Parts: sequence; C-alpha cells; structure tokens
Amino acid sequence: MSSHRGFASDNNATVHPAVLEAIARVNVGHATGYGHDAYTRGVEERFATVFGPRARVFLVFNGTAANVLCLRAACRRFQAVICTDAAHLNVDECGAPEAIVGVKLLTAPGVDGKLAPEEVDALITRVGDEHAVQPRVVSISQSTELGTVYSLEETRALAHTAHERGLLLHVDGARLSNAAAALGQTLRALTVDAGVDLLSFGGTKNGLLGADAVVLFEPAPADGFEYLRKQSMQLASKMRFLAAQFDALLSDELWLRCASHANAMAARLADAVRTVPGVTVTRPVQANAVFATLAPRVTRALQERFAFYVWDERTSEVRWMCSWDTTEEDVEAFVAAVRAAVGAN
Amino acid sequence: MSSHRGFASDNNATVHPAVLEAIARVNVGHATGYGHDAYTRGVEERFATVFGPRARVFLVFNGTAANVLCLRAACRRFQAVICTDAAHLNVDECGAPEAIVGVKLLTAPGVDGKLAPEEVDALITRVGDEHAVQPRVVSISQSTELGTVYSLEETRALAHTAHERGLLLHVDGARLSNAAAALGQTLRALTVDAGVDLLSFGGTKNGLLGADAVVLFEPAPADGFEYLRKQSMQLASKMRFLAAQFDALLSDELWLRCASHANAMAARLADAVRTVPGVTVTRPVQANAVFATLAPRVTRALQERFAFYVWDERTSEVRWMCSWDTTEEDVEAFVAAVRAAVGAN
Amino acid sequence: MSSHRGFASDNNATVHPAVLEAIARVNVGHATGYGHDAYTRGVEERFATVFGPRARVFLVFNGTAANVLCLRAACRRFQAVICTDAAHLNVDECGAPEAIVGVKLLTAPGVDGKLAPEEVDALITRVGDEHAVQPRVVSISQSTELGTVYSLEETRALAHTAHERGLLLHVDGARLSNAAAALGQTLRALTVDAGVDLLSFGGTKNGLLGADAVVLFEPAPADGFEYLRKQSMQLASKMRFLAAQFDALLSDELWLRCASHANAMAARLADAVRTVPGVTVTRPVQANAVFATLAPRVTRALQERFAFYVWDERTSEVRWMCSWDTTEEDVEAFVAAVRAAVGAN
Amino acid sequence: MSSHRGFASDNNATVHPAVLEAIARVNVGHATGYGHDAYTRGVEERFATVFGPRARVFLVFNGTAANVLCLRAACRRFQAVICTDAAHLNVDECGAPEAIVGVKLLTAPGVDGKLAPEEVDALITRVGDEHAVQPRVVSISQSTELGTVYSLEETRALAHTAHERGLLLHVDGARLSNAAAALGQTLRALTVDAGVDLLSFGGTKNGLLGADAVVLFEPAPADGFEYLRKQSMQLASKMRFLAAQFDALLSDELWLRCASHANAMAARLADAVRTVPGVTVTRPVQANAVFATLAPRVTRALQERFAFYVWDERTSEVRWMCSWDTTEEDVEAFVAAVRAAVGAN
Repeated sequence: MSSHRGFASDNNATVHPAVLEAIARVNVGHATGYGHDAYTRGVEERFATVFGPRARVFLVFNGTAANVLCLRAACRRFQAVICTDAAHLNVDECGAPEAIVGVKLLTAPGVDGKLAPEEVDALITRVGDEHAVQPRVVSISQSTELGTVYSLEETRALAHTAHERGLLLHVDGARLSNAAAALGQTLRALTVDAGVDLLSFGGTKNGLLGADAVVLFEPAPADGFEYLRKQSMQLASKMRFLAAQFDALLSDELWLRCASHANAMAARLADAVRTVPGVTVTRPVQANAVFATLAPRVTRALQERFAFYVWDERTSEVRWMCSWDTTEEDVEAFVAAVRAAVGAN
Repeated sequence: MSSHRGFASDNNATVHPAVLEAIARVNVGHATGYGHDAYTRGVEERFATVFGPRARVFLVFNGTAANVLCLRAACRRFQAVICTDAAHLNVDECGAPEAIVGVKLLTAPGVDGKLAPEEVDALITRVGDEHAVQPRVVSISQSTELGTVYSLEETRALAHTAHERGLLLHVDGARLSNAAAALGQTLRALTVDAGVDLLSFGGTKNGLLGADAVVLFEPAPADGFEYLRKQSMQLASKMRFLAAQFDALLSDELWLRCASHANAMAARLADAVRTVPGVTVTRPVQANAVFATLAPRVTRALQERFAFYVWDERTSEVRWMCSWDTTEEDVEAFVAAVRAAVGAN
Repeated sequence: MSSHRGFASDNNATVHPAVLEAIARVNVGHATGYGHDAYTRGVEERFATVFGPRARVFLVFNGTAANVLCLRAACRRFQAVICTDAAHLNVDECGAPEAIVGVKLLTAPGVDGKLAPEEVDALITRVGDEHAVQPRVVSISQSTELGTVYSLEETRALAHTAHERGLLLHVDGARLSNAAAALGQTLRALTVDAGVDLLSFGGTKNGLLGADAVVLFEPAPADGFEYLRKQSMQLASKMRFLAAQFDALLSDELWLRCASHANAMAARLADAVRTVPGVTVTRPVQANAVFATLAPRVTRALQERFAFYVWDERTSEVRWMCSWDTTEEDVEAFVAAVRAAVGAN
Repeated sequence: MSSHRGFASDNNATVHPAVLEAIARVNVGHATGYGHDAYTRGVEERFATVFGPRARVFLVFNGTAANVLCLRAACRRFQAVICTDAAHLNVDECGAPEAIVGVKLLTAPGVDGKLAPEEVDALITRVGDEHAVQPRVVSISQSTELGTVYSLEETRALAHTAHERGLLLHVDGARLSNAAAALGQTLRALTVDAGVDLLSFGGTKNGLLGADAVVLFEPAPADGFEYLRKQSMQLASKMRFLAAQFDALLSDELWLRCASHANAMAARLADAVRTVPGVTVTRPVQANAVFATLAPRVTRALQERFAFYVWDERTSEVRWMCSWDTTEEDVEAFVAAVRAAVGAN
C-alpha cells in the first residue's frame, strides 16, 4: 500500500500528540496498580463531570471489551440483546457476545445502520415463555457502522421503548464523539440525558493509543463490575497509562476537536465525490464515514494507492473512513485519484 | 503513601523511556489495524529470532489474557490444568480459567511456588473416566509467584513428565525475563528448548506500558488462535503500539538489562535485611522478589512510607518486589527504614 | 381443556405400551450404572444395525440435549452453525446453543422450514477473517418444524454443499421417523447414506417416555463425547431404562409403525379440513403436522375443547400435530368441531 | 459380573414397583408438555406439603443437573462455591460447575466427607478484592459421599456461618432420604428448617427410574429458574412421567421406607464385616454406605462375584453401597464371601 494515510479505518490513524504527552507526563514514580492510583481517580472524576453524577466509569483496553462487558454486566444467562444486523456486536466481534457472554442477539435490518423503535418492539416476543430467550438490552451504535447518527429524539424514542418493556438501552459508542460533534450536543445529552443506561465510550478510534471506557448509568449492572472486568482480562495493571489517555481526550475538548475534524473531512470527501460521475454516495454522511458505490475496476485501481475496505462485494459498495489525522490534502489527493480512476478529469 | 517508588509490585513501576520512544517512533502515518501492519510483522520476526522458528507469537494486552488464551487454545471443554495452589491462575485471575475457559484447575501445594513432577504425576488420575476432568496442561510460573526460579533441569523434568502423559507444558512467564537473567540463560533455552509448549511472555512487569505475548511452540493450539484472541477481546486495533513496545524490549537486550537490574536490587535488599534482627527472609531470593516475616507493628510502620503487600496475614509474611526502575537509593532508604522500624539502629 | 387427546404436540402423547413393557422387563437385578451395562451395549449394537457400522450412539434425556451436544462436539469456540430462522435450535432452546455451546447461529429464512443449498452458500462468508465467526455445521430439521420433509436429493445436495465448504451436516431428527415413514426410506438412507454427519434421533416425540439419541457418523466429534455428555448433565445413571425404550422403538419397526400412523392421521386431518370453508392449509402436509389459517374466533372456539397452538398470531396460522396415539375418532371429532366452529355444517 | 445384586451403587438398583405403577397410571390421554399439566402441579403441591410453603420445586433428569442448576441459579459469574475435596461436585461431575456454570470451587478436606464451619470461614477470604473469586454458596452433601450424616446441629451451624457471611447453603441431597431416615427427622427439618437455601433432592438413587428435584427455599435463585432449566437441557417434555415418579416417592412415605431399608442393610453389613479379621471399617456407617479396607487380593477375589468400587487404590479402601432393593440374603451372601476371601471361615 503506497498511501501514507488512507481511508481504511479510524483505527489505522496515529495517536494524537497530546495523548502521548499525557502518557509521558504520568510516567513518573510508582503508582498503585489496577486503577487504585490518583491518576485513575482523577479521570473517573472527570468522567463524572462530563457524563453527570450517575456515571460510573471503568476503563478497558478496547471497544469489543467495552461492548462485551456491558452485556456481561446487564444480562442474565437466558436473556437476549436486540440490535441491527449490521451491528459490530453481530458481525465483527467473532461471536464474543455468544461465546463470552452466552447471550443470543436478536436482529432487525434497520435503515442505514439505525434501529427503529418498531423493530425493537417486534423483537420483544414470547415474554415469559421459558423456551425462548428473554430480551434484556437494546444495543445501538452511535454513530452507526454506516456513518449515520441517531438524533436526540430517535435515541429518546428507543430509550422510551426499551424502558417501557423493561429493557436497558446500550450505546456502542466507539464513535460517540463523532455523533456528538455531528449533532452539536454534549456527550451527556446524547447518553444519560437521553435515557441511555449503558455506554461503551470509544477512545481508540478518536486519537488514543488504546483505551475505551464502560460508562454505566444504572446501578445494577455496576454492582460487581470490577470482578467482571478483571475476570474478562480487561483490568490494566498499569492503569495510569489508560487514565492519562482519557485525561487528554477529555481535556480542552480534544475529543470534540478530533471528532469534528474527522467529520469535516468526511463531509468534504462526500461533497467532492458526489460530483464525480460513476460514484454514488449511498448513505447519509453524518459522521466520519462515506459509503459509495463505484465500479469494481475503479475500486481496484484506487486500492493500489489508498487503503480502504469494500463493504459489500455484491453491490460494489465501499467505505471511506476519515480520522482525526486525515488532512485536507489527503482528501484532495484521494478525490483526485477517484477522478482519475473513473477517467473523469 | 509517601514513597516515590515502593516495593508493592513491578507493575507499579514506570515505563522504560526506550519503550515510550519506540511508541512515538511508530506514530507516523496510517498502519493497517489489528496487527496486519509492518511493525507487527517485524516484531513477529524478532520473536522468531529470539525463540526459534517454531515460535508463533500473538500480542495481547495483559498477562491474565495471555494465560487464559493459552488455556483456551490448548484445552477442550472437559480438560483440566495442573498448577500450584499459589499460581496466579488459581488465585489472582478472579476465576477466569473457570469462567472464560471453562476448565478446572487441579492444584498441588508445591514448594516455594514450584511444582514437582511427582505432584503432576499424582494429579493425573482417572484417565478415561468420563466422570472426571481430564488433565491436559501443566502450568508453571517462571519466575514463580514466590520469587523462585525453576532450573533448566527442573523445567525439563516437568516437560518430560507432561509429555510422557500426553500433556502440554505451559509457562506463565509474566516474569520470564527475571528467570532468564537469574539463570544466565536465553529465553529460548528456558522455554522451547527445555520442552515448553505454550508461553505467556510478560512485558508489562518488565518496563512496558501494557503488552504481553502468547508464544506457541506447538502447532495445534496455534490453529485458529487468531479467532480466539479476537473473540476474547484481546485483538488490539492499533497493534503497532503493542508491537513497538516489544520491539524495544527485544532490542539491545533491554529485557535482560531491566530484569537483571530488578533481580540485583532484590538481592541487595535481601542481603541487607538479612542482617536486621527481627527480619527473616522466608524464600530463596532468586529473581526480583524478597519475602520476609517481620512483626506486624513493623509492617504497619513501614507501610506508612513504602508501598508493599502483606502476603500472608497469618504468618506476617510480606513481599517486597523490585522493578526495572528501583534504584540503589530506593533500596538503601527502605533498608534504613526497616532498621529504624525494628528499632535496630 | 376438555379434550382427552388434542393436537398440541406429539410430546403431549402417551408412552407406547411396548415401551413401558420394555422398561418393566429390564427392571430385574442390578445393572452397572451410566451405560456400562448389557442392555445399553445391546441397544448400541441395534443402532449399528439400523444406521450402519459408522454410527456411534449416545443416549440422552431429550432433544434439546441431543442438539446441543452435537454442536458442542462439533464446534470450536469461534465457529458457527447455519440453520433456518424457524429452527428449533434458533427459537425454542432458550438460547442453549449460545449459552451452553457458545456458538452463533447464522440463519436463513428457508421455505416451509427447509433450508436450500444456496442459502447455506450465501451464509458461508468471511472465511479466514478473524473478526467473524467461522461456519462449521449446517443444521436442518427432518421432518421440519413446519411439517415438511427433505427429499433424499435435497439432503444429499445440502450434504454436498456443506462438505464442499468443509462443514458438517447435522440433522435435528426429533421427528426423523416421521420423515422416513413419509419417504418410505430407511433411517440409514436418510442420514449417513445421504451424507449426514451428526444426528439427533428423536424418541420422545414418537412414543417413548423420555429418551433421545445422538448418533455420530464422523469420528472427530465422537472423540471425547462421553465427557461432554456427562459434563452436560446428560449421562443417565440408570441408563438401562433409556436403553430399554430405544430397544422397544427399534424392535419390530415400532418407530415406523408409530410414525406412519401419526403421518396418516395428519394426512386424514388435512384432507378433511381442506374441504371446510374458511380453513386454508398453509404448508405441504408431509409428516405429522398440519398448518392452517382460520379466523381467530374459530381458533378460540376450538381451543376450548382441543389443545393446539397458534403458530403465528399475526397471520392466524395454527399448528395441529398428530401423534402415534391419535385415533381416527380423534380426527373425526376434531374435524367436526372445526366444521361447527366455522358454522359450516 | 456374576452377582445378581451387588454393592456398587444405589443407582445400579431397580426401580421400585410402586414407581413403575405410578408411571403406568398417568399414561392415559394427552397432557400438556413441559410440566404445564395437572400431574406436575399435583406433585408440586405435594412438595410444598413436605418441605413447607417456601419450597419451589423444579423436576430435572438427574443429580448432576440438580446440582449444576442450583449453582447456575445462585451464582454470578465471578462467584465461588465452597465444598469438600470429596464432594461429588468437585470430583464426579466432569467439571460441570466450571464448564457449565463457570464457577470456581474452593475446597477444604473435611472429615469423613463433612465440612466444618471453621473450614468454610477459612475459605471466605479476599472479600471485595477484584482479583479473587467471591464465595457465594456453601455446598454440602447429605448424606455425604463417605456415608456419613450431618446432624441437625451441624447443618444449622453451617447455615449460620454461611448466612452470617452473606452466603447461601446448598445441600446435594442425592441421598437426603438416607440422612433423614438415619436421623429420624423429616425432610423439612433437615433442610429449610435447618437453614438450607437450595436443595438437590435425589430420587434416582432411592428407587426412581430417573428423576431428581431442585427445591429452592430462597426467592432470588428461583426467579428465572424456568429459563435456566430449559436452557440447561433439563426440561422434560413429557414431564408427567417425572412427576409420577415423585408422586410415588412422596406417597405413603415410600422415600422413607426405601431409605431406611438401605440404611439398615448397610448397618447389618458393617456389623457383620467388623467381626471379620483383616477387614477394617473406615468411616462411621450412618447411612447406606460401608467403607472398609481389606487386602487387594481379597478385593479382587470378591469383585469376581460382586460388583463394588475401590474408593482409594492407595489405601485399599473399598465402598459397599446398599440400596432399597438390597436384601438380607444379599448381605449374608456377601459377608460369607468376604469371610471366605480373607480365609476366615
């Protein structure tokens, strides 16, 4: 791959310099392991400031873990989780919900990665029937795997439906910052204030080296969570270095600056390719991803120089993901390459 | 805790500057996620140089994960693992072997943390009896939780016993470097060349920020391991930053320098406290830990200034752990404090 | 419920007298527990006669267990099972495949409960991608949950597709006898000779008191199966009484007589109701079940006298299941009641 | 094996005729499956009469299942179970507690199979330490695997210790009837009235064909138990035939007559062999088992004619188990054989 920065994934990006600096800054003297240190306590307080006093935060290594741990904490062994067919949980965790948590996923197609309250409702069936799994959690991705964003109203409606049926609402927020930036809302407004009960708050995809957070707004799943985190191999011994990363991310709105920039780059890219004949943008571009169809030979030509993924072989739909370190020049160069590849300049 | 550097654990220590530098060095441009990048390939080759061509390496986030994944890869659902009562696997993973792998641990007391071939043999019973779990793995810690080291001969004898009975030998090598430094042996001599089949190779306790490695010398457990790592929430998306850490550790024998220094500090500490009346060193000091008994009031007085753990309340045995960043001055100051606390100066 | 015999399920039926007699016959003297007795060995030989020399049989308590154990024996932790949306495995085991085996089910709609090779093929994706579960087993129900039957050709085609892609073919044969009776084929022709690798062979729904069998035609899943059965709580201590039940079932073609009779009753019922205005038979009636739509008020009126289930509330589709002990009089009485309820006589 | 009735196990015994009669009696007409029938409701009421109004009963297929389900219902994923080294749970379930429930067992040696409150207390350590499993259940066998019986006072003391520490007391009562017969106490006095929270009540070893019961006295583990039973493959479709067995067992004190007789036969056997030189009875004979040491050549000679197990190869200790159908003649013949084998007549 000849491209210096591509459009494969926001986890192909670099670590933000402020994050590396924060790591270096705490690298002084000994600190008690496993999160019982002042740095971690500090970042926990910072989370409470950002997400409100009901938030209980547990740092983990990655987003798969944040998701799996939320479900492990919330579900009994015979309960189920409702999500879209396209949910990362459903297709990209190598079966961790089933193998590590033991829950069944009940899926609905959704539209552009978004689940509708009616779909949730339709999947809550056979309540009280011992032969069937019992839905316990509704899980949505915000922003979604297809680059779309739930509005505040949509989130509230899902929370309403979930709560009315006795379920909890989980947000896979690997890219929550991008959604908040897109909506011009605080992280708190998008989550606890909108009725979210369990949150996987992503850091790694937004400029961190490797840290994500479980944020619990309900007391029951938080009870005993420390044990589940340790047992699930997600308790960092040198926790201060995860804490430092989040400290940087939550300082001076770094999370917002990074996410806004990535979103802006995606918007710029979408705007540009929309004018290219033979390229069809297939999904609303609301966060930091652009989905488009283009001829397979064009895809192949582009992939020789720029990394990105084919999302759906059958429809020739590709995904272009922007990140905090994507530059305007990167976008320009890529758009030029698209034009060249389609033979449109 | 008023002490700048204490003796609580080698995971309370800082990250070695060379490791932070290596992280910064790879923080340039995009790299394919999940380990499919040149940095990771490079460090995999380095492991092959260090551990021999049979080694297959998989980086993970921490030592618990390395241990659990070795067992998940090696054991069928009805198989069991033999280890000592004091094994980290048995007492410090919050039941992960049972809850995440589903295996039963069969334990023997051992001596100073070391398992004997006769103990292994005695635990291999009821082979072929469907009512009983079937032993599959012998797991030892090198160096042990009690600061002792298996000699090459002892390791070979355990491997021989294991293999003769159709079992595999796993080494929990969270502190393997300390053992290698203590024995003046290469990592390869201590592991694959001595008959070890599965290795958890520790980095975090020896100067890394947060990275450990599974090293498999047998092909069967390696088959499909990628899936198990991903499903077990241990596949880093920004893998280059784990790779960089190990690259630093394996460069210029940093692992050996760090471990040798920690061992030397433990030896210095042990030699000094042995001369203090009322302090009894309770275990052979062969790696980077010193175990000793002292009066509870002395322990309490010391803990006001220096962090360390009481290992066994009943016997007033404490553990003092040295790390790569422990200085001679730290040791002197601590020994002086011990002398003062026992009223011996 | 005022009806003596209804149409709710073949597991609402009685035990065939020959089965109770067989149980009484072996109730003499002591027999070694857990299947190490002469009665069990005898029935194992009988299975080899029926299913051919490759068959290895393991008796279990019920059909859920037979299915779950087949998957536990065949799948590694990251593997997946392909079946229809309507599969008992998917909707009626309270999530046992996920919770007890840890596998994910990949489902296709099927037609009338039957899976097509193209659907299987379409679900085998992302092979070698560590983020995705890896399909290992194709599971079909024969006869299906919708009362249909795979022809020999259809079974062979599915086996061919499965094997070509490196998968195994499992048959949930809770009602395999009904399929064999319907097709006029031997149990062996329908299974091992058609390429089936793993079989759950039902007894309870066909006149037994409570016994089902796992029949394995592939050696790999059979290796260690004894341990899995015991650990999965399915090893009967007084096994001779399960063996006696199957001994009766396989004697004098009792399985065939029972199944043929149930099928004949279903055909009779279907033929009769087809002539009733307002009743639409919705699925091919090939085994012992009749599916039909009728007005909800008719359903309610009928259910006051006869037990049966509404299959789909939304479409007012009901299921009428015949069993070995359904009589012609039962059918006549029920048909008369249907006629009366629709106001058609 | 030439013996008609041996001393291998009470599960080698026949089914009591009254039980087969009860099964035949309910074999009339259709009954709703899965326990939603009048027979099952009837037996549930009978259990409430026997065990008091707090009892909630769930019938299952065997004792392993009763034990595993009690733990699955009572324990969270990071909790642990305290029992003796010799507990069936620990050594004879092929790792089901670990593999199916995911809990760790914490074991103490006990004396003659009995756990002491001090042992329980000593195993409740590291409460609140996220690195360690958290004890939740104390499990004892009554009568024990070594043929001994907890007195009412001993049971109460264990319940007191458990409750004081926030734990539940589980009784593996595969042979509870033998204990009740031995103590001359009701089943209720021995369990709920003595502080027991969860009970596995054995039927199979006391004359049933194959049925055991989970009896829950605490509401929390009962919540959702139906789902766990179904998912754990223990929901009988033709439940009436399990209900009928327990109906017979609880009628006319059949449980007590069977158990008393088995106990009496064991006492008679013990009394007789105590007078035989070279035979040492090694455990208090309080229920239906006799443990003894005798020369290996004597054991071998006896085993040619009578089935029984060597309990411990190293000490030449054997187990002779009496059952409801053991006759005085069986005992006489066996004692004569022992005398003959030791050369003592």
